[in-house]
Amino acid sequence: MAEVAQKRLNQLTNIIQPPVTVATFRTARPATASVDYTPLNPVNFLLRSAQIYTHKPAVIYNGQQCSYGQLAIRVKNFAIALVNEYKISPGEKVAILCPNTQPILEAHFAIPAARAVIVALNHRLNATEVEYIVKHSDAKMFIIDSEYQHLIPANLNIKLVVIHEGAKDDPYEAMLKLGEHGHWSDLELAGDERDVFGISYTSGSTGRPKGVRHAYRFPWAITAVGGTHVMLRKIDYGLIWHHLKNDAVTHYNGAPTLQTEIVNHPDAVRLDRPVTVMTGGSYPSSVLLRELESLNIWPRHIYGLTETFGPTSATYEPVHVEHLSDEERYAMLARQGFADLTADEIRVMDQGTGKDVPMDGKTMGEITMRGNIVMKDYYKDPDATSKATKYGVFWTGDLAVRHPDGAIELKDRQKDIVISGGENISSIEIESTILFMDDVLEVAVVAGPDEKWGEHPVAFVVPKRGRKVTSEQIFAYCKSHLAGFKLPKTVHIIDELPKTSTGKTQKYILREQIWEGKAKKIN
Amino acid sequence: MAEVAQKRLNQLTNIIQPPVTVATFRTARPATASVDYTPLNPVNFLLRSAQIYTHKPAVIYNGQQCSYGQLAIRVKNFAIALVNEYKISPGEKVAILCPNTQPILEAHFAIPAARAVIVALNHRLNATEVEYIVKHSDAKMFIIDSEYQHLIPANLNIKLVVIHEGAKDDPYEAMLKLGEHGHWSDLELAGDERDVFGISYTSGSTGRPKGVRHAYRFPWAITAVGGTHVMLRKIDYGLIWHHLKNDAVTHYNGAPTLQTEIVNHPDAVRLDRPVTVMTGGSYPSSVLLRELESLNIWPRHIYGLTETFGPTSATYEPVHVEHLSDEERYAMLARQGFADLTADEIRVMDQGTGKDVPMDGKTMGEITMRGNIVMKDYYKDPDATSKATKYGVFWTGDLAVRHPDGAIELKDRQKDIVISGGENISSIEIESTILFMDDVLEVAVVAGPDEKWGEHPVAFVVPKRGRKVTSEQIFAYCKSHLAGFKLPKTVHIIDELPKTSTGKTQKYILREQIWEGKAKKIN
Repeated sequence: MAEVAQKRLNQLTNIIQPPVTVATFRTARPATASVDYTPLNPVNFLLRSAQIYTHKPAVIYNGQQCSYGQLAIRVKNFAIALVNEYKISPGEKVAILCPNTQPILEAHFAIPAARAVIVALNHRLNATEVEYIVKHSDAKMFIIDSEYQHLIPANLNIKLVVIHEGAKDDPYEAMLKLGEHGHWSDLELAGDERDVFGISYTSGSTGRPKGVRHAYRFPWAITAVGGTHVMLRKIDYGLIWHHLKNDAVTHYNGAPTLQTEIVNHPDAVRLDRPVTVMTGGSYPSSVLLRELESLNIWPRHIYGLTETFGPTSATYEPVHVEHLSDEERYAMLARQGFADLTADEIRVMDQGTGKDVPMDGKTMGEITMRGNIVMKDYYKDPDATSKATKYGVFWTGDLAVRHPDGAIELKDRQKDIVISGGENISSIEIESTILFMDDVLEVAVVAGPDEKWGEHPVAFVVPKRGRKVTSEQIFAYCKSHLAGFKLPKTVHIIDELPKTSTGKTQKYILREQIWEGKAKKIN
Repeated sequence: MAEVAQKRLNQLTNIIQPPVTVATFRTARPATASVDYTPLNPVNFLLRSAQIYTHKPAVIYNGQQCSYGQLAIRVKNFAIALVNEYKISPGEKVAILCPNTQPILEAHFAIPAARAVIVALNHRLNATEVEYIVKHSDAKMFIIDSEYQHLIPANLNIKLVVIHEGAKDDPYEAMLKLGEHGHWSDLELAGDERDVFGISYTSGSTGRPKGVRHAYRFPWAITAVGGTHVMLRKIDYGLIWHHLKNDAVTHYNGAPTLQTEIVNHPDAVRLDRPVTVMTGGSYPSSVLLRELESLNIWPRHIYGLTETFGPTSATYEPVHVEHLSDEERYAMLARQGFADLTADEIRVMDQGTGKDVPMDGKTMGEITMRGNIVMKDYYKDPDATSKATKYGVFWTGDLAVRHPDGAIELKDRQKDIVISGGENISSIEIESTILFMDDVLEVAVVAGPDEKWGEHPVAFVVPKRGRKVTSEQIFAYCKSHLAGFKLPKTVHIIDELPKTSTGKTQKYILREQIWEGKAKKIN
């Protein structure tokens, strides 16, 4: 370029990004990088975004912004402190229990940057579960937000950092300060992308939580594209609407229950840009889908498990189904669809033979997965691991059919299926039928005892706030939409369903209630 | 979903995608897939897109469309024929020379699906080069379009398929027919993503072409996202405008020379949707950038080499520079910027010490790269390989500076730098200055002999069609924009620059002309 312009451009460069930044973000080198091979590692996404999007907000939280440049420096300080001050060695576990605030994001980069293994705990667990996980994971250090310090196990014999957000002497900020004098180039990243990145514990609805071990070889999208993380300490629908309206939010995630609250909130307005919401965990009703779309919020129904590091499949893209009638479209969108680009094919297989079921939309089998986002194993549980990985695929425990186009449609958790007179009845099929009713907020169907048929379906129905629905209305609606043997014999109208810490309905609690009741009747 | 709706939905599924497709696209299994690991392989992108986007056009060519479903079947037929009929074994090389028509796309999936190694030849090579590459690569089979059959080496002793596009007895289509009875599940994909995927030969501007070997571990984007490939047998600017206007083109690639023809074409109109163009190989002038933008075509300046399987870095995104004045913005956009997400950091290093140069926008060094899209090695050339990979990085042979924000800016090919009185003068700097002149289409600056200073810059300038520019004007413009020692001492106004088969200016031809001239003068 012209000599004359060069000086001005050097000035501009400094305006766009000050000179200090580049040396600051010189990439830490993985142990085994070679000319043609760099191990996949999400930490590199942060370093790249810090270099290119230095001044772009990486985080919006609590009315404040943190740029990618600042985030990368904080993460470096954190990692250096882990290595130099807390003497965490490669492969050692660091546990963290923190709501959706900045330290949990920082930990997901800093702990791997220190080559340690992150064990992130759900803040909705109880003290017994927390103690079990901290001990089972062999954590050498525990970082916890002060809001949850009552969950700290007694006689905990490992290093402890309690985050006091906003406090002048916050121990978390003090820890970061200890790393200020180190550099990214002092850190050596994981040399093998199949090393363990983290251990995530299952919610343990069927026994002790299992420690799902994941490798580095999986995607980590928001930081990779230089997106902004909008973080919330708690679910606060007013605040969610504030961010939707004011912070150019493009994507968010949440279970259908949460979506229902969002669409019914007094601040709800049609947004002037489209927003994509990833929703899953239970069936999104057609009423809900319609309400979201009317607000310019476009739902994609996703499906996945802790063992697949979260979402693995998504249903049809809007373009596939936009020509259909509303009812048809919403029913298609309720399917779980196809595996992500980063995952191997998602299949429905027969547990006995290990073969794929026919793709007829009717034959039930178990959903299986394989590939780069499936877990390595369950930590210290070789029996559970080998049971879950028969025939070289991961068995999800979820029952589904596969449609002629290859899309999967979840029918039930294996343990939730109702077996009546030898017929398999999908609790989800009944639930999704009842959810078509306008006044219904949530529903759970479980197997109740039946003296003649062994089991029969029992429905627990939660009406929408301020609405009313009767058992008779439920019976009548089901009768006109379901085959006779699938009709629930009992319907309970209740205020709330029991949920796990991750928001899943605890059907086993409902089952216990019914079978207790039965025992009484027989007496 | 409701029982009543199920039947209708099954019908819809059949409308969206007929039942035949899924079993057809059942993924071929890689040899070493495990629960948590599937080797990266672009063939899987095709299979996934064929399953999800079955009826979406994968190719538009010659007024016809080919859907992803059809493409995957043709690729399968091709691969099965290679394995079963042509007896190609894993790791054997298959060469193909074909313009930008459907078989070249199909070959890029079918040859790896057969676990063979693709050797794709440029159709602008001459017969000697073609013979050298076919022999050097140890190709077991050669597929070539009939338009280029004059390039078939005499006494070629390997299997040969000549594509006669559109002919009733086209041998290429006959080959595909031989694979019709096989299935995807008969194919076993590469078990190791670091296996060799293909060998691409350099254009050989400095000697024999070198065989650049690439692994499977690199990206392959259009098929992955289910995009449509619009293919052209030849560069035809009228046809390019036809597709831009009628086929919802979102992205295209091409050197600056080609962009100049596009903006000056009589069919050029401002497009009603934005189109992104990736351009590189030479400096895009600010005039050109402005003209493209005025047509709603948004350029990104990219940089890469055969050794990095094409583009590796891209300059600032529009959002980074949109607040700048035009002149400043275009100068910023002329930089080569930052490495892609899939590449490791792009650096500028000192050849002697192997250390990074200071990021001051002034100190020159050589551009180096490392990571998943860098070649494995040069085939059968360990000396060239080890020379190019000193200090564990790939040395590009391109000289650049690095700006304080980490962006790189190319200054010259190492062999094109002009050394005058001990000063390094960047030929690109002079070229980009002259390109600011409105009447200039192209320019090349090379070192000419100088009895006092050793060398001095000589400029070859091509005016725009129908425009006129004189040596005096060039001198005057350079004088007002460049330091005295950088001024070209001689300026030649010519009609056309000599170019390689890949469209790069052959500066060595220009140099030969000048040094010949000098020899004569001395006599």
